[in-house]
Amino acid sequence: MNLESLTHTSGEWLRGTGPESDIVISSRIRLARNLAAFPFTNRATAHHKTEIEAMLRERIAKLELDPKLAYINVPGLSTLDRQLLVERQLISRELAGADGPRGVALGPRETVSLMVNEEDHLRLQVMRSGFALDEAWSDIDKVDDMLEQRVSYAFSDEFGYLTACPTNVGTGMRSSVMLHLPALVLAKQIEKVFRALQKINLAVRGLYGEGSRASGDFYQISNQVTLGKSETTILSEIREVIPQIITYERQARQTLMREGRQSLQDRVSRAYGTLCSATMMTSEETMDLLSSVRLGINLGILEDITIPTVNELFIHTQPAHLQKLMGTSLDGEERNAARARYLRQRLREGGAHPN
Amino acid sequence: MNLESLTHTSGEWLRGTGPESDIVISSRIRLARNLAAFPFTNRATAHHKTEIEAMLRERIAKLELDPKLAYINVPGLSTLDRQLLVERQLISRELAGADGPRGVALGPRETVSLMVNEEDHLRLQVMRSGFALDEAWSDIDKVDDMLEQRVSYAFSDEFGYLTACPTNVGTGMRSSVMLHLPALVLAKQIEKVFRALQKINLAVRGLYGEGSRASGDFYQISNQVTLGKSETTILSEIREVIPQIITYERQARQTLMREGRQSLQDRVSRAYGTLCSATMMTSEETMDLLSSVRLGINLGILEDITIPTVNELFIHTQPAHLQKLMGTSLDGEERNAARARYLRQRLREGGAHPN
Repeated sequence: MNLESLTHTSGEWLRGTGPESDIVISSRIRLARNLAAFPFTNRATAHHKTEIEAMLRERIAKLELDPKLAYINVPGLSTLDRQLLVERQLISRELAGADGPRGVALGPRETVSLMVNEEDHLRLQVMRSGFALDEAWSDIDKVDDMLEQRVSYAFSDEFGYLTACPTNVGTGMRSSVMLHLPALVLAKQIEKVFRALQKINLAVRGLYGEGSRASGDFYQISNQVTLGKSETTILSEIREVIPQIITYERQARQTLMREGRQSLQDRVSRAYGTLCSATMMTSEETMDLLSSVRLGINLGILEDITIPTVNELFIHTQPAHLQKLMGTSLDGEERNAARARYLRQRLREGGAHPN
Repeated sequence: MNLESLTHTSGEWLRGTGPESDIVISSRIRLARNLAAFPFTNRATAHHKTEIEAMLRERIAKLELDPKLAYINVPGLSTLDRQLLVERQLISRELAGADGPRGVALGPRETVSLMVNEEDHLRLQVMRSGFALDEAWSDIDKVDDMLEQRVSYAFSDEFGYLTACPTNVGTGMRSSVMLHLPALVLAKQIEKVFRALQKINLAVRGLYGEGSRASGDFYQISNQVTLGKSETTILSEIREVIPQIITYERQARQTLMREGRQSLQDRVSRAYGTLCSATMMTSEETMDLLSSVRLGINLGILEDITIPTVNELFIHTQPAHLQKLMGTSLDGEERNAARARYLRQRLREGGAHPN
C-alpha cells in the first residue's frame, strides 16, 4: 500500500454508486475489540502497546484474504500522511494523534480498515458506497470471525465485548450511514429530522465525526446503544429509519423543484460558477458549494460533471489531500489559493456550463 | 431618431474613452433656461405649455447644427421608452413622469440633449466621455448662444438666469462628473472624501441622481452653488477637485494591489464568474459585480473583456433597456432571469477567464 496512490484516487465510499447513492454517500460499520490478555490502551504500558501492536499485526498478516490487507505503521508516517488517512476516513483522529506503536491495515479499494492501538486495541471498519449496511455487516462479520479464531478477545458472558469506553460495551458496534441532505437543510427541516432521530437514540454528526459541523450538508447517522441488543437488532433499527429520511429529502427536493426551481437553478449555477472562477477558497466554502453542485447534478439541473467527480473533489480539496496533490506543504492562505486553482482545473476538464 | 437604435448601442458617455476614463466615466453640464414670455412650468396653464413646447420645438429645429437634433415628443412614447431615455441619462425622471406637452431633442451620439417643459422650460445638457468638462462647456455654451439669438430667456441683471427653483438661479448651471470609485469604497475611505467635498459645497450622488444609492460604486460630483459666480468659476472649482479624487482612487487601487492583491483577484474573478453563471440577477447586484469587473480590467487582473463592453452592460441590464433588448415587457422576476441570461451570453462572447 503506497500512500501516494491514495492521493490521486478515491475509495469505494466515494465511488458514488450503490443503492440510493444520490442521497446515501456511504454505509459504515465499525467494531471495537480488545485482547483479553492486555490492559486497555489507556492503561497499557509502552511495553504492552508494543506487544499488542506486534501480535495484531502478525495475526492480521495471516488473515486469509485475497488480496491481503496492507499494513501501515502509523508512527512512521509524516503528519501530512496521517492527516490524509483521517480525511480519507481510514483512520480516526485519535489514531493519527496518539503516541506509541500503532498501525492500520487497509483492504482493497479502502473498504476495510483495521486500526491497532486506537482507543481500543483493535477497531475494525468496513465502508461501502451507498446504502449497503447489510453488505458492510457481512464483510466485517467475516473479518471479525477470522480474527477471533486467532486471538482471544476480551469478552464477558453478561455484557458482551468489553471496551475501553463504556459506551461501546456489548456489541462494540457503531453502524453509521452518511447522508447528503441539502434539500432538508435548504427547507429548514433538518432540525426536525434530528430531533426525531435523537428520540430513537440515533446520533447525528458531521462528516468528520463528533463535534464536526455538517460541512457540505453531509450527516452521519449512527446508533448510540451498543449494549443489550444484538448486532442484527441494532442494524435493523438504523436500516429501517434511513429510508424515511431518504423519502423526506426526496420530498424536499421535489418541493424545491416545484416551488423554487428558478432560485434553486440560480443557487446551483452560481455555486458552479464560483468554484470555476474563485482564486481563493476555504475548505468550508468548497464543501458548501460542492454540496449545491451535487444537488444540482442529482436533480438534472447541472450536466457534464459527474457525481464521482464531485465526491472526489470533496476529499481532494481537504487540506492534506491538497498538499499531497500539490507535492508540497502549504500554509492556510497558500492552501486557499491552491485549492481554488485545483478546482478550476478539475472543473474545466469537466466543462459543465448552465444554459 | 429611432429609439430602437438606442437600445442596441451606448452613447458617447459610455464609450469609455476620454481623459482619465479608467476612473472618470463622463462629464456633464446642464443649463436651466426659461422663456421670458411665459410663467414657469409649474405655474403654466396647459395652453401655455402647448405654446412653450411648440415654440421651443420650432426654434430647436432651426438651430444650425450638423447633424440636426432629433426631436422626440415624450407624451407619444411608451412608458418603457421613456424609462429607456431616463436610464440613458438623456431625459430626467421628472420629464419622463410629467404631464402635458413636452419633448427632448437629441444630438449625435447622445452628447446633446435639450429637454422642453421639464421643471424649467428648457434644460440643455451636454455629456462627454471621460474628464472633459471644458469640452462639454464649449459645446453647451455654443448651443445656448445659438438658442439665445432666437428666444428671449428670463434673465435678471441682478441675479442672472431666472429658474423655477431658486437653487438654480444665476448661471442655471449644474456641472457634474461621474466617477467610478471602487477602491475608495473597498478601502472604506469614500465617506472621508464625501465630507471633504461637502465642505467645499460640492454635492455627491449616485448614478441616477438625487437620492439614488451609489450602485456600482459610481458617484456623481456636482456644484451646488449656481448664483453669484460665473460659469467659468464654477467649472474651475469642480475641475480642480476632480484630479485630487482621481489621485486618491489611484492610490487606493495601488494599495489594494500591493497589500491585498490575492483577495482583490479573488473578488474580481468571483464577480466575473457569478456574472457568467447566475441564472437570476437583480440590477443592483449586476452593478456591484460589474463594478468589481471594471476595477479588475483597469488593474490588468482580468483580460479579454473591454471597458466599453462593461460600461455598456451597466446600461443594457437596466430594466427598460433589458425589456427593449428582449422585445417584450417583463415583471421583476422575469427581468432577473432575462438579465442573467443576457449577461451570460454577452460575457461568453467576450470569453474572459482568470488563469
